Amino acid sequence: MTRTVTAFHSGPEGAKGNARDMRVRWALEEAALDYETRTIDFASHAQARSEGQPFGQIPNYRDGEIDMFESGAIVLQIAEGCETLLPTDPAARARALSWLFAALNTVEPTTWNLLMLHVIKPDWSDAARPSMTEAAIARLRTVSEALGDKNWLEGRFTVGDLMMVSVVRHVALIGIVDAFPNLMAYVKRGEARPAFQRALAANHADFREPQPA
Amino acid sequence: MTRTVTAFHSGPEGAKGNARDMRVRWALEEAALDYETRTIDFASHAQARSEGQPFGQIPNYRDGEIDMFESGAIVLQIAEGCETLLPTDPAARARALSWLFAALNTVEPTTWNLLMLHVIKPDWSDAARPSMTEAAIARLRTVSEALGDKNWLEGRFTVGDLMMVSVVRHVALIGIVDAFPNLMAYVKRGEARPAFQRALAANHADFREPQPA
Repeated sequence: MTRTVTAFHSGPEGAKGNARDMRVRWALEEAALDYETRTIDFASHAQARSEGQPFGQIPNYRDGEIDMFESGAIVLQIAEGCETLLPTDPAARARALSWLFAALNTVEPTTWNLLMLHVIKPDWSDAARPSMTEAAIARLRTVSEALGDKNWLEGRFTVGDLMMVSVVRHVALIGIVDAFPNLMAYVKRGEARPAFQRALAANHADFREPQPA
Repeated sequence: MTRTVTAFHSGPEGAKGNARDMRVRWALEEAALDYETRTIDFASHAQARSEGQPFGQIPNYRDGEIDMFESGAIVLQIAEGCETLLPTDPAARARALSWLFAALNTVEPTTWNLLMLHVIKPDWSDAARPSMTEAAIARLRTVSEALGDKNWLEGRFTVGDLMMVSVVRHVALIGIVDAFPNLMAYVKRGEARPAFQRALAANHADFREPQPA
Protein backbone atom coordinates (compact mmCIF):
# COMPACT_ATOMS: atom_id res chain seq x y z
CA MET A 1 0.00 0.00 0.00
CA THR A 2 1.38 3.38 -1.04
CA ARG A 3 0.15 6.74 0.19
CA THR A 4 0.10 9.31 -2.61
CA VAL A 5 -0.51 13.07 -2.74
CA THR A 6 -0.97 15.35 -5.74
CA ALA A 7 1.43 18.30 -6.00
CA PHE A 8 2.75 20.70 -8.62
CA HIS A 9 5.81 20.05 -10.76
CA SER A 10 5.50 23.44 -12.46
CA GLY A 11 3.72 26.76 -12.12
CA PRO A 12 4.37 30.32 -10.98
CA GLU A 13 7.21 30.80 -8.53
CA GLY A 14 4.74 31.99 -5.87
CA ALA A 15 3.10 28.57 -5.75
CA LYS A 16 6.38 26.92 -4.79
CA GLY A 17 6.39 26.15 -1.07
CA ASN A 18 2.93 27.67 -0.57
CA ALA A 19 0.48 25.45 -2.41
CA ARG A 20 -1.68 23.24 -0.26
CA ASP A 21 0.28 20.05 -0.80
CA MET A 22 2.68 21.62 1.74
CA ARG A 23 0.12 21.26 4.53
CA VAL A 24 -0.36 17.59 3.78
CA ARG A 25 3.37 16.92 3.36
CA TRP A 26 4.02 18.62 6.71
CA ALA A 27 1.38 16.49 8.46
CA LEU A 28 2.75 13.31 6.90
CA GLU A 29 6.24 14.21 8.10
CA GLU A 30 5.02 14.98 11.63
CA ALA A 31 3.28 11.60 11.64
CA ALA A 32 6.40 9.89 10.19
CA LEU A 33 4.43 8.40 7.29
CA ASP A 34 6.02 7.68 3.92
CA TYR A 35 4.31 8.93 0.77
CA GLU A 36 4.81 9.49 -2.93
CA THR A 37 3.58 12.35 -5.09
CA ARG A 38 1.57 12.45 -8.29
CA THR A 39 2.66 15.73 -9.88
CA ILE A 40 0.75 18.00 -12.26
CA ASP A 41 1.15 21.44 -13.79
CA PHE A 42 -0.27 24.39 -11.84
CA ALA A 43 -2.56 25.34 -14.72
CA SER A 44 -3.84 21.81 -15.43
CA HIS A 45 -7.20 22.01 -13.69
CA ALA A 46 -8.47 19.16 -15.86
CA GLN A 47 -5.58 16.99 -14.73
CA ALA A 48 -6.22 17.95 -11.10
CA ARG A 49 -9.83 16.85 -11.54
CA SER A 50 -8.81 13.57 -13.13
CA GLU A 51 -6.52 13.08 -10.12
CA GLY A 52 -9.49 13.27 -7.78
CA GLN A 53 -9.91 16.94 -6.84
CA PRO A 54 -13.35 18.01 -8.13
CA PHE A 55 -12.52 21.74 -7.95
CA GLY A 56 -9.42 21.30 -10.11
CA GLN A 57 -7.02 22.05 -7.28
CA ILE A 58 -4.47 20.11 -5.29
CA PRO A 59 -4.15 18.05 -3.13
CA ASN A 60 -5.85 14.73 -3.58
CA TYR A 61 -4.77 12.00 -1.15
CA ARG A 62 -4.97 8.24 -1.61
CA ASP A 63 -4.17 5.54 0.91
CA GLY A 64 -5.58 2.10 0.17
CA GLU A 65 -9.35 2.42 -0.03
CA ILE A 66 -9.22 6.09 0.91
CA ASP A 67 -9.50 8.65 -1.91
CA MET A 68 -10.06 12.17 -0.57
CA PHE A 69 -9.45 15.87 -1.19
CA GLU A 70 -9.23 19.21 0.66
CA SER A 71 -6.01 19.82 2.56
CA GLY A 72 -7.92 20.37 5.81
CA ALA A 73 -9.68 17.02 5.57
CA ILE A 74 -6.49 15.20 4.58
CA VAL A 75 -4.48 16.77 7.40
CA LEU A 76 -7.20 15.74 9.85
CA GLN A 77 -7.22 12.20 8.42
CA ILE A 78 -3.47 11.97 8.96
CA ALA A 79 -3.73 13.54 12.42
CA GLU A 80 -6.15 10.89 13.68
CA GLY A 81 -4.14 8.46 15.75
CA CYS A 82 -1.04 10.70 15.74
CA GLU A 83 -0.58 12.15 19.24
CA THR A 84 1.93 14.72 17.91
CA LEU A 85 -0.83 16.28 15.81
CA LEU A 86 -4.05 15.50 17.67
CA PRO A 87 -4.13 14.92 21.42
CA THR A 88 -6.17 11.92 22.55
CA ASP A 89 -7.45 13.80 25.62
CA PRO A 90 -10.98 14.85 24.56
CA ALA A 91 -10.80 18.45 25.83
CA ALA A 92 -7.39 19.05 24.24
CA ARG A 93 -8.52 17.38 21.01
CA ALA A 94 -11.52 19.72 20.82
CA ARG A 95 -9.24 22.74 21.20
CA ALA A 96 -6.93 21.50 18.43
CA LEU A 97 -9.92 21.01 16.12
CA SER A 98 -11.16 24.51 16.97
CA TRP A 99 -7.90 26.06 15.79
CA LEU A 100 -7.72 23.82 12.71
CA PHE A 101 -11.10 25.10 11.55
CA ALA A 102 -10.41 28.68 12.71
CA ALA A 103 -7.36 28.73 10.44
CA LEU A 104 -9.39 27.56 7.44
CA ASN A 105 -12.81 29.18 7.87
CA THR A 106 -12.18 32.33 9.96
CA VAL A 107 -8.60 33.47 9.26
CA GLU A 108 -7.81 32.24 5.75
CA PRO A 109 -10.89 33.68 3.98
CA THR A 110 -9.66 37.15 4.99
CA THR A 111 -5.96 36.58 4.33
CA TRP A 112 -6.68 34.87 1.03
CA ASN A 113 -8.58 37.96 -0.13
CA LEU A 114 -5.50 40.03 0.63
CA LEU A 115 -3.27 37.66 -1.32
CA MET A 116 -5.71 37.82 -4.22
CA LEU A 117 -5.79 41.61 -3.98
CA HIS A 118 -2.01 41.92 -3.97
CA VAL A 119 -0.95 39.13 -6.23
CA ILE A 120 -3.68 37.70 -8.41
CA LYS A 121 -6.68 39.98 -8.80
CA PRO A 122 -5.56 43.59 -9.15
CA ASP A 123 -8.99 44.36 -10.61
CA TRP A 124 -10.42 44.20 -7.09
CA SER A 125 -8.26 47.26 -6.64
CA ASP A 126 -8.51 50.22 -4.33
CA ALA A 127 -12.20 50.16 -3.46
CA ALA A 128 -11.96 46.84 -1.66
CA ARG A 129 -8.48 47.26 -0.21
CA PRO A 130 -9.22 49.16 3.03
CA SER A 131 -11.96 46.91 4.37
CA MET A 132 -10.21 43.73 3.21
CA THR A 133 -7.02 44.81 4.93
CA GLU A 134 -8.90 45.75 8.08
CA ALA A 135 -10.67 42.36 8.14
CA ALA A 136 -7.43 40.39 7.81
CA ILE A 137 -5.64 42.47 10.42
CA ALA A 138 -8.50 41.95 12.87
CA ARG A 139 -8.24 38.18 12.47
CA LEU A 140 -4.46 38.18 12.79
CA ARG A 141 -4.73 40.36 15.90
CA THR A 142 -7.00 37.79 17.54
CA VAL A 143 -4.59 34.97 16.73
CA SER A 144 -1.74 37.09 18.10
CA GLU A 145 -3.66 37.74 21.32
CA ALA A 146 -4.64 34.09 21.69
CA LEU A 147 -1.04 33.03 21.20
CA GLY A 148 0.37 35.61 23.62
CA ASP A 149 3.82 34.54 24.78
CA LYS A 150 3.14 30.81 24.38
CA ASN A 151 5.00 28.75 21.80
CA TRP A 152 1.78 27.25 20.39
CA LEU A 153 -1.89 28.20 20.57
CA GLU A 154 -2.74 25.65 23.26
CA GLY A 155 0.73 25.41 24.80
CA ARG A 156 1.79 22.26 22.95
CA PHE A 157 1.99 21.86 19.15
CA THR A 158 -1.11 20.41 17.48
CA VAL A 159 -2.69 20.12 14.04
CA GLY A 160 -4.28 23.49 14.81
CA ASP A 161 -0.83 25.09 14.83
CA LEU A 162 0.20 23.24 11.68
CA MET A 163 -2.73 24.81 9.86
CA MET A 164 -2.55 28.24 11.48
CA VAL A 165 1.18 28.53 10.74
CA SER A 166 0.47 27.45 7.15
CA VAL A 167 -2.14 30.19 6.72
CA VAL A 168 -0.16 32.94 8.47
CA ARG A 169 3.14 32.22 6.75
CA HIS A 170 1.45 32.53 3.36
CA VAL A 171 -0.01 35.99 3.99
CA ALA A 172 3.23 37.02 5.71
CA LEU A 173 4.68 37.16 2.18
CA ILE A 174 2.98 40.52 1.67
CA GLY A 175 4.28 42.02 4.90
CA ILE A 176 1.05 42.29 6.85
CA VAL A 177 2.20 40.03 9.69
CA ASP A 178 5.22 42.20 10.52
CA ALA A 179 3.00 44.21 12.88
CA PHE A 180 2.64 41.11 15.08
CA PRO A 181 6.12 40.03 16.27
CA ASN A 182 4.80 37.04 18.21
CA LEU A 183 3.07 35.75 15.06
CA MET A 184 6.26 36.14 13.04
CA ALA A 185 8.13 34.18 15.72
CA TYR A 186 5.33 31.59 15.67
CA VAL A 187 5.71 31.16 11.92
CA LYS A 188 9.48 30.80 12.25
CA ARG A 189 8.97 28.26 15.05
CA GLY A 190 6.72 26.20 12.80
CA GLU A 191 9.07 26.46 9.84
CA ALA A 192 11.97 25.36 12.06
CA ARG A 193 10.37 22.01 12.84
CA PRO A 194 12.31 19.21 11.14
CA ALA A 195 9.06 17.84 9.71
CA PHE A 196 8.31 21.18 8.04
CA GLN A 197 11.84 21.36 6.65
CA ARG A 198 11.56 17.88 5.17
CA ALA A 199 8.18 18.77 3.65
CA LEU A 200 9.53 21.96 2.10
CA ALA A 201 12.55 20.20 0.63
CA ALA A 202 10.30 17.55 -0.91
CA ASN A 203 7.98 20.25 -2.29
CA HIS A 204 10.92 22.02 -3.91
CA ALA A 205 12.32 18.80 -5.29
CA ASP A 206 9.04 18.11 -7.08
CA PHE A 207 8.68 21.70 -8.31
CA ARG A 208 10.90 22.04 -11.31
CA GLU A 209 10.83 23.72 -14.67
CA PRO A 210 10.59 22.75 -17.41
CA GLN A 211 7.79 20.25 -17.05
CA PRO A 212 9.25 16.71 -17.02
CA ALA A 213 8.51 14.51 -19.96
CA MET B 1 -24.04 17.48 32.21
CA THR B 2 -25.61 20.07 29.90
CA ARG B 3 -24.52 20.79 26.36
CA THR B 4 -24.66 24.51 25.58
CA VAL B 5 -24.25 26.56 22.41
CA THR B 6 -24.01 30.32 21.98
CA ALA B 7 -26.55 31.95 19.65
CA PHE B 8 -28.06 35.36 18.98
CA HIS B 9 -31.15 36.69 20.72
CA SER B 10 -31.07 39.90 18.68
CA GLY B 11 -29.46 41.39 15.62
CA PRO B 12 -30.25 42.21 11.98
CA GLU B 13 -33.04 40.20 10.39
CA GLY B 14 -30.56 38.66 7.93
CA ALA B 15 -28.75 36.91 10.76
CA LYS B 16 -31.91 35.06 11.78
CA GLY B 17 -31.75 31.47 10.55
CA ASN B 18 -28.37 32.00 8.88
CA ALA B 19 -25.85 32.56 11.67
CA ARG B 20 -23.52 29.68 12.40
CA ASP B 21 -25.34 28.43 15.47
CA MET B 22 -27.74 26.92 12.87
CA ARG B 23 -25.08 24.49 11.69
CA VAL B 24 -24.44 23.28 15.21
CA ARG B 25 -28.14 23.08 16.11
CA TRP B 26 -28.78 21.05 12.96
CA ALA B 27 -25.98 18.61 13.78
CA LEU B 28 -27.24 18.24 17.37
CA GLU B 29 -30.74 17.50 16.09
CA GLU B 30 -29.45 14.93 13.56
CA ALA B 31 -27.54 13.28 16.42
CA ALA B 32 -30.61 13.48 18.72
CA LEU B 33 -28.65 15.32 21.42
CA ASP B 34 -30.31 17.77 23.82
CA TYR B 35 -28.75 21.20 24.32
CA GLU B 36 -29.39 24.63 25.74
CA THR B 37 -28.37 28.01 24.35
CA ARG B 38 -26.45 30.89 25.85
CA THR B 39 -27.75 33.89 23.88
CA ILE B 40 -26.04 37.20 23.11
CA ASP B 41 -26.66 40.25 20.97
CA PHE B 42 -25.34 40.16 17.38
CA ALA B 43 -23.18 43.23 18.00
CA SER B 44 -21.72 42.11 21.35
CA HIS B 45 -18.34 40.87 20.18
CA ALA B 46 -16.99 41.34 23.69
CA GLN B 47 -19.72 39.11 25.06
CA ALA B 48 -19.05 36.52 22.36
CA ARG B 49 -15.39 36.53 23.43
CA SER B 50 -16.29 36.16 27.08
CA GLU B 51 -18.45 33.21 26.03
CA GLY B 52 -15.44 31.45 24.58
CA GLN B 53 -15.19 32.55 20.94
CA PRO B 54 -11.85 34.36 20.58
CA PHE B 55 -12.84 36.07 17.31
CA GLY B 56 -15.97 37.57 18.88
CA GLN B 57 -18.32 35.38 16.86
CA ILE B 58 -20.73 32.53 17.57
CA PRO B 59 -20.89 29.63 18.24
CA ASN B 60 -19.03 28.40 21.27
CA TYR B 61 -19.90 24.87 22.41
CA ARG B 62 -19.52 23.36 25.86
CA ASP B 63 -20.11 19.78 26.90
CA GLY B 64 -18.55 18.72 30.19
CA GLU B 65 -14.80 19.24 29.90
CA ILE B 66 -15.10 20.31 26.27
CA ASP B 67 -15.02 24.05 25.51
CA MET B 68 -14.60 24.72 21.80
CA PHE B 69 -15.41 27.12 18.98
CA GLU B 70 -15.76 27.23 15.16
CA SER B 71 -18.94 25.75 13.76
CA GLY B 72 -16.97 23.33 11.56
CA ALA B 73 -15.05 21.92 14.51
CA ILE B 74 -18.18 21.67 16.67
CA VAL B 75 -20.16 19.95 13.94
CA LEU B 76 -17.33 17.45 13.49
CA GLN B 77 -17.17 16.89 17.25
CA ILE B 78 -20.91 16.12 17.28
CA ALA B 79 -20.61 13.95 14.16
CA GLU B 80 -18.02 11.64 15.71
CA GLY B 81 -19.85 8.54 16.80
CA CYS B 82 -23.05 9.52 14.95
CA GLU B 83 -23.50 7.25 11.93
CA THR B 84 -26.16 9.56 10.48
CA LEU B 85 -23.56 12.29 10.13
CA LEU B 86 -20.24 10.47 9.78
CA PRO B 87 -20.02 6.94 8.34
CA THR B 88 -17.80 4.54 10.26
CA ASP B 89 -16.54 2.94 7.05
CA PRO B 90 -13.09 4.57 6.59
CA ALA B 91 -13.41 5.32 2.86
CA ALA B 92 -16.90 6.80 3.25
CA ARG B 93 -15.78 8.77 6.31
CA ALA B 94 -12.91 10.30 4.32
CA ARG B 95 -15.32 11.41 1.59
CA ALA B 96 -17.64 13.03 4.15
CA LEU B 97 -14.69 14.90 5.67
CA SER B 98 -13.62 16.02 2.19
CA TRP B 99 -16.99 17.68 1.56
CA LEU B 100 -17.13 19.16 5.07
CA PHE B 101 -13.85 20.98 4.46
CA ALA B 102 -14.70 21.78 0.83
CA ALA B 103 -17.81 23.60 2.02
CA LEU B 104 -15.81 25.67 4.51
CA ASN B 105 -12.47 26.29 2.80
CA THR B 106 -13.20 26.09 -0.95
CA VAL B 107 -16.84 27.10 -1.47
CA GLU B 108 -17.68 29.44 1.41
CA PRO B 109 -14.73 31.84 1.00
CA THR B 110 -16.09 32.69 -2.46
CA THR B 111 -19.78 32.78 -1.53
CA TRP B 112 -19.07 34.78 1.62
CA ASN B 113 -17.38 37.44 -0.50
CA LEU B 114 -20.53 37.71 -2.58
CA LEU B 115 -22.70 38.05 0.53
CA MET B 116 -20.35 40.75 1.80
CA LEU B 117 -20.48 42.49 -1.56
CA HIS B 118 -24.26 42.44 -1.74
CA VAL B 119 -25.24 42.90 1.86
CA ILE B 120 -22.50 44.18 4.10
CA LYS B 121 -19.63 45.84 2.26
CA PRO B 122 -20.96 47.89 -0.65
CA ASP B 123 -17.61 49.72 -0.67
CA TRP B 124 -16.07 46.69 -2.38
CA SER B 125 -18.37 47.74 -5.18
CA ASP B 126 -18.19 47.32 -8.89
CA ALA B 127 -14.48 46.71 -9.37
CA ALA B 128 -14.50 43.47 -7.43
CA ARG B 129 -17.95 42.27 -8.42
CA PRO B 130 -17.21 40.50 -11.74
CA SER B 131 -14.31 38.34 -10.58
CA MET B 132 -15.94 37.61 -7.21
CA THR B 133 -19.13 36.53 -8.92
CA GLU B 134 -17.20 34.39 -11.39
CA ALA B 135 -15.27 32.70 -8.57
CA ALA B 136 -18.41 31.82 -6.63
CA ILE B 137 -20.23 30.55 -9.69
CA ALA B 138 -17.27 28.34 -10.59
CA ARG B 139 -17.35 26.73 -7.14
CA LEU B 140 -21.11 26.28 -7.19
CA ARG B 141 -20.88 24.73 -10.66
CA THR B 142 -18.42 22.13 -9.37
CA VAL B 143 -20.72 21.26 -6.47
CA SER B 144 -23.64 21.02 -8.90
CA GLU B 145 -21.65 18.70 -11.18
CA ALA B 146 -20.47 16.56 -8.25
CA LEU B 147 -24.04 16.25 -6.99
CA GLY B 148 -25.51 15.43 -10.41
CA ASP B 149 -28.86 13.72 -9.99
CA LYS B 150 -28.02 12.18 -6.62
CA ASN B 151 -29.83 13.23 -3.46
CA TRP B 152 -26.58 13.85 -1.55
CA LEU B 153 -22.97 14.36 -2.56
CA GLU B 154 -21.91 10.79 -1.77
CA GLY B 155 -25.31 9.19 -2.27
CA ARG B 156 -26.27 9.11 1.41
CA PHE B 157 -26.57 12.14 3.72
CA THR B 158 -23.43 13.00 5.73
CA VAL B 159 -21.94 15.87 7.70
CA GLY B 160 -20.50 17.02 4.37
CA ASP B 161 -24.03 17.64 3.08
CA LEU B 162 -25.04 19.34 6.32
CA MET B 163 -22.26 21.86 5.82
CA MET B 164 -22.56 22.22 2.05
CA VAL B 165 -26.32 22.82 2.27
CA SER B 166 -25.66 25.38 5.03
CA VAL B 167 -23.21 27.27 2.83
CA VAL B 168 -25.26 27.07 -0.37
CA ARG B 169 -28.59 28.03 1.23
CA HIS B 170 -27.00 31.17 2.66
CA VAL B 171 -25.71 32.47 -0.68
CA ALA B 172 -28.95 31.36 -2.35
CA LEU B 173 -30.51 34.39 -0.62
CA ILE B 174 -28.99 36.64 -3.29
CA GLY B 175 -30.29 34.56 -6.21
CA ILE B 176 -27.00 33.19 -7.53
CA VAL B 177 -27.95 29.54 -6.99
CA ASP B 178 -31.05 29.79 -9.20
CA ALA B 179 -28.88 28.90 -12.20
CA PHE B 180 -28.29 25.45 -10.68
CA PRO B 181 -31.68 23.71 -10.27
CA ASN B 182 -30.17 20.58 -8.75
CA LEU B 183 -28.46 22.70 -6.06
CA MET B 184 -31.72 24.48 -5.27
CA ALA B 185 -33.41 21.07 -4.92
CA TYR B 186 -30.48 19.94 -2.74
CA VAL B 187 -30.95 22.92 -0.43
CA LYS B 188 -34.69 22.26 -0.19
CA ARG B 189 -33.97 18.59 0.53
CA GLY B 190 -31.68 19.58 3.39
CA GLU B 191 -34.12 22.13 4.75
CA ALA B 192 -36.92 19.53 4.63
CA ARG B 193 -35.12 17.21 7.06
CA PRO B 194 -36.96 17.14 10.40
CA ALA B 195 -33.68 17.83 12.21
CA PHE B 196 -33.15 21.01 10.18
CA GLN B 197 -36.73 22.12 10.85
CA ARG B 198 -36.32 21.63 14.59
CA ALA B 199 -33.02 23.55 14.49
CA LEU B 200 -34.59 26.45 12.59
CA ALA B 201 -37.57 26.65 14.95
CA ALA B 202 -35.23 26.74 17.95
CA ASN B 203 -33.08 29.42 16.29
CA HIS B 204 -36.15 31.57 15.66
CA ALA B 205 -37.43 31.03 19.19
CA ASP B 206 -34.16 32.39 20.59
CA PHE B 207 -34.03 35.30 18.15
CA ARG B 208 -36.36 37.94 19.49
CA GLU B 209 -36.46 41.70 19.72
CA PRO B 210 -36.26 43.60 21.94
CA GLN B 211 -33.30 42.16 23.78
CA PRO B 212 -34.59 40.28 26.85
CA ALA B 213 -33.81 41.70 30.27
